[in-house]
Amino acid sequence: MKHTISVLLQNKPGVLSRVTGLFSGRGYNIESLCVNKTLDPNVSCLTLVSYGADQIIEQITKQLHKLIDVIKVTDMAETEYVEREMVLIRIKAEAGTRAEVLRIIDIFRGKVVDVSSKSYAVEITGDEEKIQAVIDILKPIGIQEIVKTGTIAMARARKTL
Amino acid sequence: MKHTISVLLQNKPGVLSRVTGLFSGRGYNIESLCVNKTLDPNVSCLTLVSYGADQIIEQITKQLHKLIDVIKVTDMAETEYVEREMVLIRIKAEAGTRAEVLRIIDIFRGKVVDVSSKSYAVEITGDEEKIQAVIDILKPIGIQEIVKTGTIAMARARKTL
Repeated sequence: MKHTISVLLQNKPGVLSRVTGLFSGRGYNIESLCVNKTLDPNVSCLTLVSYGADQIIEQITKQLHKLIDVIKVTDMAETEYVEREMVLIRIKAEAGTRAEVLRIIDIFRGKVVDVSSKSYAVEITGDEEKIQAVIDILKPIGIQEIVKTGTIAMARARKTL
Repeated sequence: MKHTISVLLQNKPGVLSRVTGLFSGRGYNIESLCVNKTLDPNVSCLTLVSYGADQIIEQITKQLHKLIDVIKVTDMAETEYVEREMVLIRIKAEAGTRAEVLRIIDIFRGKVVDVSSKSYAVEITGDEEKIQAVIDILKPIGIQEIVKTGTIAMARARKTL
Protein backbone atom coordinates (compact mmCIF):
# COMPACT_ATOMS: atom_id res chain seq x y z
CA MET A 1 0.00 0.00 0.00
CA LYS A 2 1.10 3.55 -0.69
CA HIS A 3 2.10 5.59 2.35
CA THR A 4 2.77 9.34 2.25
CA ILE A 5 4.68 10.26 5.38
CA SER A 6 5.28 13.79 6.57
CA VAL A 7 8.18 14.43 8.99
CA LEU A 8 9.20 17.63 10.78
CA LEU A 9 12.89 17.55 11.69
CA GLN A 10 15.75 19.71 12.89
CA ASN A 11 17.64 21.27 9.98
CA LYS A 12 21.05 19.70 10.75
CA PRO A 13 23.58 17.72 8.69
CA GLY A 14 23.07 13.97 9.04
CA VAL A 15 19.36 13.90 9.95
CA LEU A 16 18.30 13.18 6.38
CA SER A 17 20.77 10.28 6.13
CA ARG A 18 19.38 8.74 9.31
CA VAL A 19 15.79 9.00 8.06
CA THR A 20 16.53 7.46 4.65
CA GLY A 21 18.77 4.86 6.31
CA LEU A 22 15.80 3.53 8.31
CA PHE A 23 14.09 2.60 5.04
CA SER A 24 17.08 1.21 3.19
CA GLY A 25 18.11 -0.79 6.29
CA ARG A 26 14.92 -2.82 5.81
CA GLY A 27 15.34 -3.00 2.05
CA TYR A 28 12.41 -0.62 1.58
CA ASN A 29 12.63 1.76 -1.34
CA ILE A 30 11.63 5.40 -1.06
CA GLU A 31 9.53 6.17 -4.13
CA SER A 32 9.82 9.93 -3.86
CA LEU A 33 11.12 12.37 -1.26
CA CYS A 34 11.13 16.14 -0.75
CA VAL A 35 12.79 18.12 2.00
CA ASN A 36 12.97 21.88 2.45
CA LYS A 37 12.94 24.58 5.13
CA THR A 38 9.76 25.65 6.91
CA LEU A 39 9.02 29.14 8.26
CA ASP A 40 11.45 28.34 11.07
CA PRO A 41 14.91 28.04 9.46
CA ASN A 42 15.93 25.52 12.13
CA VAL A 43 13.14 23.13 11.17
CA SER A 44 12.76 21.26 7.87
CA CYS A 45 9.74 19.48 6.51
CA LEU A 46 10.28 16.15 4.76
CA THR A 47 7.61 14.33 2.75
CA LEU A 48 8.25 10.82 1.48
CA VAL A 49 6.26 8.19 -0.37
CA SER A 50 6.95 4.50 0.12
CA TYR A 51 5.03 1.39 -0.89
CA GLY A 52 5.00 -1.43 1.62
CA ALA A 53 3.10 -3.62 4.04
CA ASP A 54 1.17 -1.44 6.51
CA GLN A 55 2.76 -3.25 9.44
CA ILE A 56 6.34 -2.62 8.31
CA ILE A 57 5.64 1.04 7.48
CA GLU A 58 4.12 1.42 10.94
CA GLN A 59 7.28 -0.03 12.49
CA ILE A 60 9.41 2.37 10.47
CA THR A 61 7.33 5.41 11.48
CA LYS A 62 7.63 4.34 15.14
CA GLN A 63 11.40 4.22 14.72
CA LEU A 64 11.32 7.62 13.00
CA HIS A 65 9.62 9.03 16.12
CA LYS A 66 12.50 7.78 18.22
CA LEU A 67 15.22 9.42 16.09
CA ILE A 68 16.90 12.36 17.73
CA ASP A 69 16.17 15.57 15.76
CA VAL A 70 12.82 14.22 14.53
CA ILE A 71 10.03 16.48 15.86
CA LYS A 72 6.82 15.03 14.41
CA VAL A 73 5.82 12.15 12.12
CA THR A 74 2.44 11.91 10.35
CA ASP A 75 1.31 9.04 8.14
CA MET A 76 -1.13 10.77 5.81
CA ALA A 77 -3.00 7.48 5.30
CA GLU A 78 -4.69 8.27 8.65
CA THR A 79 -6.34 11.43 7.34
CA GLU A 80 -7.82 13.06 4.22
CA TYR A 81 -5.19 15.04 2.40
CA VAL A 82 -4.29 17.01 -0.70
CA GLU A 83 -1.22 15.77 -2.55
CA ARG A 84 0.73 17.51 -5.28
CA GLU A 85 3.89 17.17 -7.28
CA MET A 86 5.50 19.37 -9.93
CA VAL A 87 7.26 18.33 -13.09
CA LEU A 88 9.45 20.18 -15.58
CA ILE A 89 9.24 18.60 -19.05
CA ARG A 90 11.34 19.55 -22.07
CA ILE A 91 9.24 18.67 -25.08
CA LYS A 92 10.06 18.71 -28.77
CA ALA A 93 8.20 21.66 -30.35
CA GLU A 94 8.98 22.30 -33.98
CA ALA A 95 6.95 24.32 -36.46
CA GLY A 96 4.43 21.52 -37.09
CA THR A 97 3.81 20.48 -33.48
CA ARG A 98 4.04 23.75 -31.50
CA ALA A 99 0.32 24.57 -31.59
CA GLU A 100 -0.61 21.04 -30.49
CA VAL A 101 1.90 21.11 -27.62
CA LEU A 102 0.55 24.47 -26.40
CA ARG A 103 -3.03 23.14 -26.55
CA ILE A 104 -2.12 20.16 -24.36
CA ILE A 105 -0.17 22.34 -21.90
CA ASP A 106 -3.16 24.68 -21.69
CA ILE A 107 -5.62 21.86 -20.96
CA PHE A 108 -3.46 20.74 -18.04
CA ARG A 109 -2.97 24.36 -16.89
CA GLY A 110 0.78 24.13 -17.44
CA LYS A 111 3.15 27.05 -17.93
CA VAL A 112 5.92 27.37 -20.51
CA VAL A 113 9.12 28.28 -18.62
CA ASP A 114 11.74 28.11 -21.41
CA VAL A 115 11.56 28.31 -25.19
CA SER A 116 14.02 27.44 -27.95
CA SER A 117 13.58 26.99 -31.69
CA LYS A 118 13.21 23.25 -31.18
CA SER A 119 11.66 22.75 -27.76
CA TYR A 120 9.55 24.07 -24.90
CA ALA A 121 10.23 23.49 -21.23
CA VAL A 122 6.92 23.38 -19.35
CA GLU A 123 5.94 23.28 -15.69
CA ILE A 124 2.91 21.23 -14.64
CA THR A 125 1.52 20.54 -11.16
CA GLY A 126 -1.00 17.97 -9.97
CA ASP A 127 -1.31 14.65 -8.23
CA GLU A 128 0.66 11.62 -9.40
CA GLU A 129 -2.11 10.43 -11.75
CA LYS A 130 -2.47 13.80 -13.49
CA ILE A 131 1.28 14.12 -13.97
CA GLN A 132 1.38 10.59 -15.41
CA ALA A 133 -1.51 11.47 -17.76
CA VAL A 134 0.37 14.52 -19.10
CA ILE A 135 3.50 12.45 -19.62
CA ASP A 136 1.54 9.74 -21.48
CA ILE A 137 -0.01 12.32 -23.80
CA LEU A 138 3.24 14.20 -24.49
CA LYS A 139 5.37 11.06 -24.98
CA PRO A 140 4.42 10.46 -28.64
CA ILE A 141 5.36 14.09 -29.48
CA GLY A 142 8.82 13.63 -27.98
CA ILE A 143 9.88 14.19 -24.36
CA GLN A 144 13.56 15.17 -24.22
CA GLU A 145 14.02 15.62 -20.50
CA ILE A 146 11.97 15.31 -17.36
CA VAL A 147 12.62 16.43 -13.76
CA LYS A 148 10.08 15.88 -10.99
CA THR A 149 9.82 17.07 -7.43
CA GLY A 150 8.64 14.41 -5.03
CA THR A 151 5.07 14.41 -3.74
CA ILE A 152 4.13 16.87 -1.00
CA ALA A 153 0.97 16.55 1.07
CA MET A 154 -1.24 18.65 3.34
CA ALA A 155 -4.13 17.42 5.50
CA ARG A 156 -7.51 18.78 4.43
CA ALA A 157 -9.31 21.14 6.80
CA ARG A 158 -12.30 19.19 8.12
CA LYS A 159 -15.09 21.75 8.10
CA THR A 160 -15.83 22.79 4.56
CA LEU A 161 -17.66 26.02 3.69
CA MET B 1 27.90 29.87 -2.82
CA LYS B 2 24.65 28.17 -3.77
CA HIS B 3 25.00 24.96 -5.78
CA THR B 4 22.07 23.18 -7.41
CA ILE B 5 23.18 19.65 -8.24
CA SER B 6 21.26 17.24 -10.41
CA VAL B 7 21.97 13.50 -10.08
CA LEU B 8 20.64 10.55 -12.08
CA LEU B 9 20.78 7.36 -10.07
CA GLN B 10 19.58 3.77 -10.02
CA ASN B 11 16.25 3.45 -8.22
CA LYS B 12 17.43 1.07 -5.46
CA PRO B 13 17.18 1.09 -1.66
CA GLY B 14 20.26 2.63 -0.04
CA VAL B 15 21.43 4.87 -2.90
CA LEU B 16 19.76 7.95 -1.41
CA SER B 17 21.41 7.32 1.98
CA ARG B 18 24.82 7.10 0.35
CA VAL B 19 24.31 10.38 -1.54
CA THR B 20 23.10 12.32 1.51
CA GLY B 21 25.80 10.67 3.63
CA LEU B 22 28.51 12.22 1.44
CA PHE B 23 27.29 15.68 2.45
CA SER B 24 26.68 15.00 6.14
CA GLY B 25 30.04 13.22 6.40
CA ARG B 26 31.68 16.58 5.72
CA GLY B 27 29.28 18.47 7.95
CA TYR B 28 27.62 20.05 4.91
CA ASN B 29 23.93 20.67 5.16
CA ILE B 30 21.56 19.93 2.29
CA GLU B 31 19.28 22.95 2.00
CA SER B 32 16.62 21.20 -0.08
CA LEU B 33 16.35 17.87 -1.89
CA CYS B 34 13.90 16.21 -4.28
CA VAL B 35 14.01 12.71 -5.65
CA ASN B 36 11.49 10.95 -7.90
CA LYS B 37 11.27 8.48 -10.78
CA THR B 38 12.10 9.43 -14.36
CA LEU B 39 10.51 7.96 -17.50
CA ASP B 40 12.61 4.85 -16.84
CA PRO B 41 11.28 3.31 -13.59
CA ASN B 42 14.76 1.95 -12.83
CA VAL B 43 16.28 5.43 -12.83
CA SER B 44 15.54 8.26 -10.39
CA CYS B 45 16.39 11.92 -10.67
CA LEU B 46 17.62 13.72 -7.57
CA THR B 47 18.02 17.50 -7.29
CA LEU B 48 19.70 19.02 -4.26
CA VAL B 49 20.70 22.50 -3.16
CA SER B 50 23.66 23.05 -0.87
CA TYR B 51 25.57 26.16 0.13
CA GLY B 52 29.31 25.81 0.47
CA ALA B 53 32.80 26.63 -0.75
CA ASP B 54 33.06 25.86 -4.50
CA GLN B 55 36.11 23.67 -3.87
CA ILE B 56 34.41 21.44 -1.31
CA ILE B 57 31.25 21.11 -3.42
CA GLU B 58 33.47 20.12 -6.37
CA GLN B 59 35.12 17.43 -4.24
CA ILE B 60 31.70 16.13 -3.18
CA THR B 61 30.41 16.00 -6.79
CA LYS B 62 33.56 14.07 -7.78
CA GLN B 63 32.85 11.57 -5.03
CA LEU B 64 29.20 11.38 -6.15
CA HIS B 65 30.46 10.36 -9.60
CA LYS B 66 32.36 7.48 -8.04
CA LEU B 67 29.37 6.09 -6.13
CA ILE B 68 28.04 2.85 -7.50
CA ASP B 69 24.46 3.34 -8.82
CA VAL B 70 25.12 7.01 -9.67
CA ILE B 71 24.72 7.50 -13.43
CA LYS B 72 25.29 11.21 -14.00
CA VAL B 73 26.06 14.29 -11.89
CA THR B 74 25.54 17.89 -13.11
CA ASP B 75 26.38 21.02 -11.13
CA MET B 76 23.90 23.52 -12.55
CA ALA B 77 26.27 26.39 -11.67
CA GLU B 78 28.13 25.47 -14.88
CA THR B 79 25.16 26.27 -17.11
CA GLU B 80 22.11 28.53 -17.45
CA TYR B 81 19.08 26.92 -15.94
CA VAL B 82 15.45 27.29 -14.93
CA GLU B 83 14.72 26.52 -11.30
CA ARG B 84 11.36 26.01 -9.64
CA GLU B 85 9.86 24.91 -6.38
CA MET B 86 6.27 24.42 -5.25
CA VAL B 87 4.70 25.29 -1.94
CA LEU B 88 1.40 24.41 -0.31
CA ILE B 89 0.32 27.09 2.18
CA ARG B 90 -2.68 26.92 4.52
CA ILE B 91 -3.71 30.49 5.13
CA LYS B 92 -6.29 31.98 7.47
CA ALA B 93 -9.25 33.16 5.36
CA GLU B 94 -12.22 34.42 7.31
CA ALA B 95 -15.06 36.60 6.04
CA GLY B 96 -13.05 39.83 6.28
CA THR B 97 -9.82 38.62 4.69
CA ARG B 98 -10.98 36.14 2.01
CA ALA B 99 -11.11 38.64 -0.87
CA GLU B 100 -7.65 40.00 -0.03
CA VAL B 101 -6.16 36.48 0.17
CA LEU B 102 -7.64 35.56 -3.23
CA ARG B 103 -6.26 38.77 -4.76
CA ILE B 104 -2.75 37.95 -3.55
CA ILE B 105 -3.01 34.32 -4.73
CA ASP B 106 -4.17 35.56 -8.12
CA ILE B 107 -1.27 38.00 -8.51
CA PHE B 108 1.17 35.14 -7.90
CA ARG B 109 -0.82 32.82 -10.19
CA GLY B 110 -1.52 30.44 -7.32
CA LYS B 111 -4.35 27.89 -7.18
CA VAL B 112 -6.67 27.20 -4.25
CA VAL B 113 -6.55 23.43 -3.60
CA ASP B 114 -8.62 23.13 -0.39
CA VAL B 115 -11.25 25.34 1.24
CA SER B 116 -12.76 25.41 4.72
CA SER B 117 -14.84 28.01 6.54
CA LYS B 118 -11.68 29.36 8.17
CA SER B 119 -8.84 28.74 5.74
CA TYR B 120 -7.64 28.21 2.18
CA ALA B 121 -4.88 25.82 1.14
CA VAL B 122 -3.11 27.24 -1.90
CA GLU B 123 -0.48 25.93 -4.31
CA ILE B 124 2.15 28.33 -5.67
CA THR B 125 5.15 27.64 -7.91
CA GLY B 126 8.20 29.74 -8.72
CA ASP B 127 11.84 30.21 -7.90
CA GLU B 128 13.03 30.52 -4.31
CA GLU B 129 12.75 34.33 -4.30
CA LYS B 130 9.16 34.36 -5.58
CA ILE B 131 8.09 31.73 -3.05
CA GLN B 132 9.74 33.77 -0.27
CA ALA B 133 7.94 36.91 -1.50
CA VAL B 134 4.54 35.17 -1.33
CA ILE B 135 5.30 33.90 2.17
CA ASP B 136 6.36 37.38 3.33
CA ILE B 137 3.13 38.91 1.99
CA LEU B 138 0.83 36.22 3.41
CA LYS B 139 2.53 36.05 6.83
CA PRO B 140 0.69 39.07 8.37
CA ILE B 141 -2.67 37.52 7.35
CA GLY B 142 -1.83 34.29 9.13
CA ILE B 143 -0.02 31.24 7.72
CA GLN B 144 -1.17 28.08 9.51
CA GLU B 145 0.89 25.46 7.73
CA ILE B 146 3.48 25.31 5.00
CA VAL B 147 4.91 22.39 3.01
CA LYS B 148 7.51 22.90 0.27
CA THR B 149 9.00 20.65 -2.34
CA GLY B 150 12.72 21.10 -2.81
CA THR B 151 14.07 23.02 -5.79
CA ILE B 152 14.19 21.27 -9.17
CA ALA B 153 16.21 22.57 -12.09
CA MET B 154 16.47 22.15 -15.86
CA ALA B 155 19.22 23.51 -18.14
CA ARG B 156 17.97 26.12 -20.60
CA ALA B 157 18.05 25.26 -24.29
CA ARG B 158 20.81 27.43 -25.80
CA LYS B 159 19.32 28.56 -29.06
CA THR B 160 16.31 30.73 -28.39
CA LEU B 161 13.61 31.43 -30.99
